[in-house]
Amino acid sequence: MTAAATRQDLDRVTAIIEEKGYRPHPIPGAQRVAIGVTGNTEPINPVLFENLPGVLEVISVSHPYKLVGREAKPEDTIVRVGGVGIGGGSFVVIAGPCAVESPERTLAVARAVKEAGAHILRGGAFKPRTSPYSFQGMGKAGLEILAAARRETGLPVVSEAMDEASLELVVEYCDMIQIGARSMQNFPLLRRCGRTSKPVLLKRGMAATVEELLMAAEYILAEGNYNVVLCERGIRTFSDHCRNTLDLAAVLTVQRLSHLPIIIDPSHATGRRHKVIPMARAGAAVGADGVMIEVHQNPGNALSDGVQAVMPAELAQLMAQLPAILPLTGRRLAEMLAIGA
Amino acid sequence: MTAAATRQDLDRVTAIIEEKGYRPHPIPGAQRVAIGVTGNTEPINPVLFENLPGVLEVISVSHPYKLVGREAKPEDTIVRVGGVGIGGGSFVVIAGPCAVESPERTLAVARAVKEAGAHILRGGAFKPRTSPYSFQGMGKAGLEILAAARRETGLPVVSEAMDEASLELVVEYCDMIQIGARSMQNFPLLRRCGRTSKPVLLKRGMAATVEELLMAAEYILAEGNYNVVLCERGIRTFSDHCRNTLDLAAVLTVQRLSHLPIIIDPSHATGRRHKVIPMARAGAAVGADGVMIEVHQNPGNALSDGVQAVMPAELAQLMAQLPAILPLTGRRLAEMLAIGA
Amino acid sequence: MTAAATRQDLDRVTAIIEEKGYRPHPIPGAQRVAIGVTGNTEPINPVLFENLPGVLEVISVSHPYKLVGREAKPEDTIVRVGGVGIGGGSFVVIAGPCAVESPERTLAVARAVKEAGAHILRGGAFKPRTSPYSFQGMGKAGLEILAAARRETGLPVVSEAMDEASLELVVEYCDMIQIGARSMQNFPLLRRCGRTSKPVLLKRGMAATVEELLMAAEYILAEGNYNVVLCERGIRTFSDHCRNTLDLAAVLTVQRLSHLPIIIDPSHATGRRHKVIPMARAGAAVGADGVMIEVHQNPGNALSDGVQAVMPAELAQLMAQLPAILPLTGRRLAEMLAIGA
Amino acid sequence: MTAAATRQDLDRVTAIIEEKGYRPHPIPGAQRVAIGVTGNTEPINPVLFENLPGVLEVISVSHPYKLVGREAKPEDTIVRVGGVGIGGGSFVVIAGPCAVESPERTLAVARAVKEAGAHILRGGAFKPRTSPYSFQGMGKAGLEILAAARRETGLPVVSEAMDEASLELVVEYCDMIQIGARSMQNFPLLRRCGRTSKPVLLKRGMAATVEELLMAAEYILAEGNYNVVLCERGIRTFSDHCRNTLDLAAVLTVQRLSHLPIIIDPSHATGRRHKVIPMARAGAAVGADGVMIEVHQNPGNALSDGVQAVMPAELAQLMAQLPAILPLTGRRLAEMLAIGA
Repeated sequence: MTAAATRQDLDRVTAIIEEKGYRPHPIPGAQRVAIGVTGNTEPINPVLFENLPGVLEVISVSHPYKLVGREAKPEDTIVRVGGVGIGGGSFVVIAGPCAVESPERTLAVARAVKEAGAHILRGGAFKPRTSPYSFQGMGKAGLEILAAARRETGLPVVSEAMDEASLELVVEYCDMIQIGARSMQNFPLLRRCGRTSKPVLLKRGMAATVEELLMAAEYILAEGNYNVVLCERGIRTFSDHCRNTLDLAAVLTVQRLSHLPIIIDPSHATGRRHKVIPMARAGAAVGADGVMIEVHQNPGNALSDGVQAVMPAELAQLMAQLPAILPLTGRRLAEMLAIGA
Repeated sequence: MTAAATRQDLDRVTAIIEEKGYRPHPIPGAQRVAIGVTGNTEPINPVLFENLPGVLEVISVSHPYKLVGREAKPEDTIVRVGGVGIGGGSFVVIAGPCAVESPERTLAVARAVKEAGAHILRGGAFKPRTSPYSFQGMGKAGLEILAAARRETGLPVVSEAMDEASLELVVEYCDMIQIGARSMQNFPLLRRCGRTSKPVLLKRGMAATVEELLMAAEYILAEGNYNVVLCERGIRTFSDHCRNTLDLAAVLTVQRLSHLPIIIDPSHATGRRHKVIPMARAGAAVGADGVMIEVHQNPGNALSDGVQAVMPAELAQLMAQLPAILPLTGRRLAEMLAIGA
Repeated sequence: MTAAATRQDLDRVTAIIEEKGYRPHPIPGAQRVAIGVTGNTEPINPVLFENLPGVLEVISVSHPYKLVGREAKPEDTIVRVGGVGIGGGSFVVIAGPCAVESPERTLAVARAVKEAGAHILRGGAFKPRTSPYSFQGMGKAGLEILAAARRETGLPVVSEAMDEASLELVVEYCDMIQIGARSMQNFPLLRRCGRTSKPVLLKRGMAATVEELLMAAEYILAEGNYNVVLCERGIRTFSDHCRNTLDLAAVLTVQRLSHLPIIIDPSHATGRRHKVIPMARAGAAVGADGVMIEVHQNPGNALSDGVQAVMPAELAQLMAQLPAILPLTGRRLAEMLAIGA
Repeated sequence: MTAAATRQDLDRVTAIIEEKGYRPHPIPGAQRVAIGVTGNTEPINPVLFENLPGVLEVISVSHPYKLVGREAKPEDTIVRVGGVGIGGGSFVVIAGPCAVESPERTLAVARAVKEAGAHILRGGAFKPRTSPYSFQGMGKAGLEILAAARRETGLPVVSEAMDEASLELVVEYCDMIQIGARSMQNFPLLRRCGRTSKPVLLKRGMAATVEELLMAAEYILAEGNYNVVLCERGIRTFSDHCRNTLDLAAVLTVQRLSHLPIIIDPSHATGRRHKVIPMARAGAAVGADGVMIEVHQNPGNALSDGVQAVMPAELAQLMAQLPAILPLTGRRLAEMLAIGA
């Protein structure tokens, strides 16, 4: 309430609070009075009060998530993808080409990724592209190539779904569903993910707050699928030297608020090949539960996002450095079990 | 190229350009040499050159859109919705409740909106909500209510589609399809819009550049639907006194680059009732092709976004002020023809 | 407090509040308890509580400004510059070259600006430039040119001060001191402005919140100078089609929170000549108390920021349009009295 | 040029380029012609061409910095502060209280910081505060306390200067001058720093691009002071879970473009105590040349920014972890020599 609010102004506000079935809690201060509200089951519409005489402002103080919050489940969730655990101290490396382009190239990268010691193979078959005239991915044929790469290498695979049709295919062919940054608030798609039996890798939207990321995950959990891994992949800011700005501290915020694992994607966050491995190291040092990295045999020829893909040798160098960093946050490289184990 | 680039460095770069089938154009300067590239049919992968000896940086200079650009079509597009023209000097006012909540309320608002002189009725039946526990809209029943309101008032109606299923219903019941900010880069949905016969109202994403907005429209035009109206509805910035920051100058940028009409949504841009009408006036003054405004009979009771809805009397006040502003940019209020005329 | 907080946790928190001399106000809710705090004379350090057992979060709810707030002074402040009033319904047009470049050019622009009907002449003699190798302004000689232009045209003049030395000169030669966006939080400079007798035009910093802008003004008022005009000149965002993003709704927020007048600067906000006049119209339509516009006789030759300067004919066109817009917000063009009147 | 540009349009543009004393370089493409410009000694005013018939857009392609660039000096600069080297593989830890509050507290923190193994003592005597009513620092008395702490511990000290007067004092009492984020574009102050003999710690502004940071450093170098250490301290974005968003990749961009060392400030970047040490580790892992950390004996009682200060034990833990991380980027902890050595 404003300093000038009258007794009548206060009574009017408390009357409305009670009329709504909530409980008013007046808190007199030296200069003005605040009125707390409890008993509401959903957010209160500020307009109920905002334009009343004597009201200075309406401030919301409670968190809206339930299933994703640490209050609901204090211990870390460990998400299993094939034989790999993510979270709870187990650090995962997901690697592979941005887009699946051909059986030969994909298999070559898959072998190199396996050789380097990564745990999960990534590869896009359905690509969200800014331009309708850019390469949009190989679709089902791409997923078949990924499945073949899994058969040969034993690596579980993750690929992006963009709509109902692609989701069905990704569920059929892959071990994990990726929901991209542009789809983070595609709520019908999130609900559908929540009704599948496959774990979901949910990327933060370019303009999403951490709270919105957690609420997007809540959509999936609310439908019964508790196997969600979050991914910080950079936000859009004025800073123009990289494609996006990796909001690394979001890892710490998520871990404080939620039990879900969170990994980082330094490839999309930077869009610059020479920055990927250093930023992956930074992610490990801050305490992320994993990294996702684009790898290509010959970055100069990639059909999509080649500029940010690293060579297998660079990935191998990262794998060699991780054991020095991970123990500092009580983590270790994920162990690979045979799929089906 | 860097100042220190050798003859050999230049030859290497020009060789690669030619090898790709493009044409190199060396431009010697006082301190360094630049090399222009032409003949490419799609964006050039910067990594082809970026890590070569002697290369300083790779800069892209061409625009990627074709159908939405003024180069393709110099004159303004006029999009017809029911009997209303948008663009080409015709200024449209779209108004109505954020969400369709009941037949009575919706009809009451529709009558008030018609009375105030607005041209198109808006109302959400499928609501994208941050929380899975918030009211998600009435769905098909909501669209039926909108259709009834159209029958009574004669106002064409627009409503948001979020996925394939809701799109089919919106196409069936409404005169215009709204694609919300969160769906601006839902490319499968954009393609589907492009294959319908209904005009599309495409809202700018919270973190989308103007170029990305135009490219999203390009997805729709590329499928054959040329009736797209763009909508600036605020972008996400650090500025925390409003829900979003209305990027009003984007109207001017779009009008310079594209022939498509563009309107503004001051309700979502500000999220504050007392700011809606002033910002709508600003939109008219800058030369937008229309405004979309949330109206409610009793903002305090609205199930969704009530805080930003104005009362019908406020809308009527805006309608009374517009004739003073519109001629300054060579515009006039849209004329209403009978639907079907 | 968290849902799991114990009686002991609450007692610990209230004890600390009391120990600090504040008053605790426990507010029990259905699931958890909140504790209000009053009696503090300055912001409370959240760390006092944040890491205590049972504490969920610490939220601040009071405004920190005193003199600039509407609570301190409900009626609009009218700032007088020469014979011109700014605020309280009086709309001012400030115009002139970005930088003072020569007596001839400056006088020519000053005459054109006067002719067009603008009220105050602007012109930079001390220029904050990103590069040390760019033209930095004519300094004292530039101020002398401005003073000569005032003598001839009768227009009061405003010019930017960057440090103690330039402030002394601006106070000596000009009618109003401009503090640029880069100096908005140059607190020693603000204090010095507060000790002068000249009105101050304070521009919002590129990354400043509205609250920070008001607090910067508070620095000036706190030293005894109550004649401050605020200026929204665009904020830095990801949106890359203009130099900055004009946060037009900030005008409305400032007017609700403060009694100080606020104008907009569409020249720096857009950095694009063809956008300046339309955005100035938008500022008038939203209810700003004035505009500041860069004008040049021959934009192609300007030494600084010429790209955004409009021609005198464009300014004249705006002046002709304003009378249609201003009455919509209860404003009128400022009247010019003879200086000294 | 546009696709529709005529021969005459091209000739007009090239004539203007030549008239200005520059050299035009027409580059014909399949659909349109680009015209390169060289021979200019400063940035070209785009408005010279932008509104000419046939001109599509004007794009700038050259970097404006000279002394700070790697082209001017390929090898890393090592800045010496007291006996400590920063850069060139030597990683520095700067630690101390946000503000100097009393001799006892400052000395206690200084001893703890020395004990933990940090290299340089920080402490603010002149504090830039958003509110004029907040504690503004102890001024000269604070610097005397810092000097006393140096005498006892042997640690060199750094403190912030805000204007000419405080700069003189900082130069007199301290080993390094800090220029804060709010002063990054206080160009008169930068010039004055450039004329001192003390090394400068230059923090990135909240809304500054990397290029603007480098240009600010250029102001200092241009005056003859080559001992500049840059500091990334977080930028302002929409992301609201931390005070700022640490743009960690900027470290890599700076190191690619410039020879100057760059450190990070995780305390101001996050504003959250529990995030400081993890983000400091991330900075080390990415390859920064040092970190600056706020330390307090009793964070709950600090007069300024206590919420983000860590305890000495947390600093000691970081010092113990750094030797595992630094070798991964070819770095080692800085060695401490006796001052004067």
